[in-house]
Amino acid sequence: MKAYKDMSKEELNSLHTELKAQFEKLKAAGISLDMSRGKPGTDQLELSTPMLDVLTSTSTFKGEDNVDFRNYGILDGTKEAKKLFAELMECPVDHVMIYGNSSLNIEYDLISRAMIHGIAGNTPWCKLDKVKFLCPVPGYDRHFAITESFGIEMINIPMDENGPDMDMVEQYVNNDPAVKGIWNVPKYTNPAGIVYSDEVVRRFANLKPAAPDFRIFWDNAYCIHHLYPDNKAQMLNIVDECEKAGNPDIYYQFCSTSKVSFPGAGVSALISSPTNIAEVKKHFTIQTIGHDKLNQIRHVRFFKDAAGVHAHMEKHAAILRPKFEAVLDTLEKELGGLEIGTWNKPLGGYFIAFDTIEGCAKRVVGLCKEAGVVMTPAGSTYPYKNDPKDTSIRIAPTLPSAEELKKACEVFVLCVKLASVEKYMNM
Amino acid sequence: MKAYKDMSKEELNSLHTELKAQFEKLKAAGISLDMSRGKPGTDQLELSTPMLDVLTSTSTFKGEDNVDFRNYGILDGTKEAKKLFAELMECPVDHVMIYGNSSLNIEYDLISRAMIHGIAGNTPWCKLDKVKFLCPVPGYDRHFAITESFGIEMINIPMDENGPDMDMVEQYVNNDPAVKGIWNVPKYTNPAGIVYSDEVVRRFANLKPAAPDFRIFWDNAYCIHHLYPDNKAQMLNIVDECEKAGNPDIYYQFCSTSKVSFPGAGVSALISSPTNIAEVKKHFTIQTIGHDKLNQIRHVRFFKDAAGVHAHMEKHAAILRPKFEAVLDTLEKELGGLEIGTWNKPLGGYFIAFDTIEGCAKRVVGLCKEAGVVMTPAGSTYPYKNDPKDTSIRIAPTLPSAEELKKACEVFVLCVKLASVEKYMNM
Repeated sequence: MKAYKDMSKEELNSLHTELKAQFEKLKAAGISLDMSRGKPGTDQLELSTPMLDVLTSTSTFKGEDNVDFRNYGILDGTKEAKKLFAELMECPVDHVMIYGNSSLNIEYDLISRAMIHGIAGNTPWCKLDKVKFLCPVPGYDRHFAITESFGIEMINIPMDENGPDMDMVEQYVNNDPAVKGIWNVPKYTNPAGIVYSDEVVRRFANLKPAAPDFRIFWDNAYCIHHLYPDNKAQMLNIVDECEKAGNPDIYYQFCSTSKVSFPGAGVSALISSPTNIAEVKKHFTIQTIGHDKLNQIRHVRFFKDAAGVHAHMEKHAAILRPKFEAVLDTLEKELGGLEIGTWNKPLGGYFIAFDTIEGCAKRVVGLCKEAGVVMTPAGSTYPYKNDPKDTSIRIAPTLPSAEELKKACEVFVLCVKLASVEKYMNM
Repeated sequence: MKAYKDMSKEELNSLHTELKAQFEKLKAAGISLDMSRGKPGTDQLELSTPMLDVLTSTSTFKGEDNVDFRNYGILDGTKEAKKLFAELMECPVDHVMIYGNSSLNIEYDLISRAMIHGIAGNTPWCKLDKVKFLCPVPGYDRHFAITESFGIEMINIPMDENGPDMDMVEQYVNNDPAVKGIWNVPKYTNPAGIVYSDEVVRRFANLKPAAPDFRIFWDNAYCIHHLYPDNKAQMLNIVDECEKAGNPDIYYQFCSTSKVSFPGAGVSALISSPTNIAEVKKHFTIQTIGHDKLNQIRHVRFFKDAAGVHAHMEKHAAILRPKFEAVLDTLEKELGGLEIGTWNKPLGGYFIAFDTIEGCAKRVVGLCKEAGVVMTPAGSTYPYKNDPKDTSIRIAPTLPSAEELKKACEVFVLCVKLASVEKYMNM
């Protein structure tokens, strides 16, 4: 394989003609495929469907709280659900507050509350001239959408294989009181599959924020979403590290069963210090009647304990692994040595991050669309949808079938080649 | 029966001695009862429990939207759920947005959003010096708690048997741009059981607000919660009336199945103009992944249609009617003619409102507590928990069994008598 960058004008021209012909042929085939969404496939949903048989009209509806799960009561989650999440997240039960079906909603509400009511007695953010959030990139578009919607200024923090650039994080957090938070998906990051190193986690825990109401938003969405049961990434526990560092209130950790049981009908949780939890609960009393206890109990009785959840996750992994490997194999086989793209080989999570050469991501996604393959819009992995170098593409291999995925990958690599040739031709 | 106000000092003294003795005897009996909570009883929960058998692992999980209900997707509710609520609330489907288990949460979020983002392009409320809400009294404590938590000034609006004093409402709304909203439970009000008259609804629809972002908060929580199937209160439809009046965007209507299926595991809905719904959805995209579609479908398949819901509500009524009547009978039998209290005879809803003579409500609730009967704290039915005349008590007869209710009412009437005698003795 000859790297594109080393090709002569003539070689590029001839390659372009050839790729263009292949592309037109693919377009004519009328494909319609989607590699844009971090959604489980139907076979994954089937794994959890027996959960719907667990709670029936003959079930018992009282548990450790001695409250009828069918009635009002229990604002912050049933004891049973709290215990399950505490075991899963390896933290004390008093650090857990159970929510509804969306951890995104917990995050949104925390920021909304900070805007209006402030955190821990500090000035509400809406009364400040400027509020800033740090955003490790590439990251999760819906995190960035939340902070953008509240008019919070977002600052890109580059990441390497160990996590965010901690020199930069410390520089901002420890000196600028307008910096109130940082978004993280610390394990199997969305989309790059990075696992924060021990040093990174410890440096997070040991931050000395200029703002007393600075909080680490630790969205541990994929903490148990391993692809290789024999090669599970380990990450330090943010709860323990923050307590050791004398910073017990500095973090909000989030998790959910969205990609464990049912996306849209799962259970989510906030993990934080009892002080933070108490503050949230004070507002929560006003905001809602509490969340669906029947669904909490449905989950608890189906999974039984953390071991039950982990066993269930191995079934997900068995479905997902071949899909990830199919994508990675195609990328390696078709793009290896061409030096027109780099990508990660994640051990978990839901995505593969692909980087084109500079200024090509939008074009690749556009070409894919022309050929009938929907990719996540280029730029989505950056705040304001602005990827300054236009290189970052998020591949979501979970939803399509193996067959569809193979086809979609063929289209994708062809579009990467075509866009790259175009780029070098115009240099 | 001689009215207490007509009794001589001697008569009052002798009555006091007698009542005090009865009270001490009751206290010694060690009763522990609760008439404070608007919660369904266990027999009511049993009515809906077969709903848990409706969705099982062998069910079909696709419907009119052609989306797998177990997966992500459908932000604003399944078509099936929208249709059911549209039929129930007698409005077009495009006026319906389905939420989670708490209509209180819809209300909270709307106000939270208005604070930060503003309504329909107007200045966010948090940027204004003053925001005011009108609060028909007596009303629902959790409404008042929401506006209080956001620092919104609340203004009492007296109610009579037709609803709020509309002269006063018009005076405020049509002249003061700081008045941004009014709380209503328009049908079977909490706690007084009032049904807004046609004239009142029409005057609401025809308001000419000084503030373009003024909204009527129309919490139709008890719209189908009739006690007498042959004597259902009728109320004009706020949707129709506002459209007729050329004010299609002036209202947000709320409803839920909390007291139809399961409190805490029901489905709620926002009913408003397509313009308002579109604005809410714009924010909703950022806030959440959408609500639990499996639970929506569980409800739809159990109830089938509005007729199914109404038939179900008749079963609730059959359980609740004797409880309400037991309370009303005791009040009539024990307090009739004494002129120490007035109360309503509701045709629906969850409460009986009782008014003591001035300055006695707190004392009555305190005495009840001493004797082992928990009542809703006096003052709860007013903003800031401040009932200026200290007369309003909310009786919640739904949760206790018939036996418990009988006992609790005996305690209550005795405490009313005792507090009233004390009052007259000290005049």
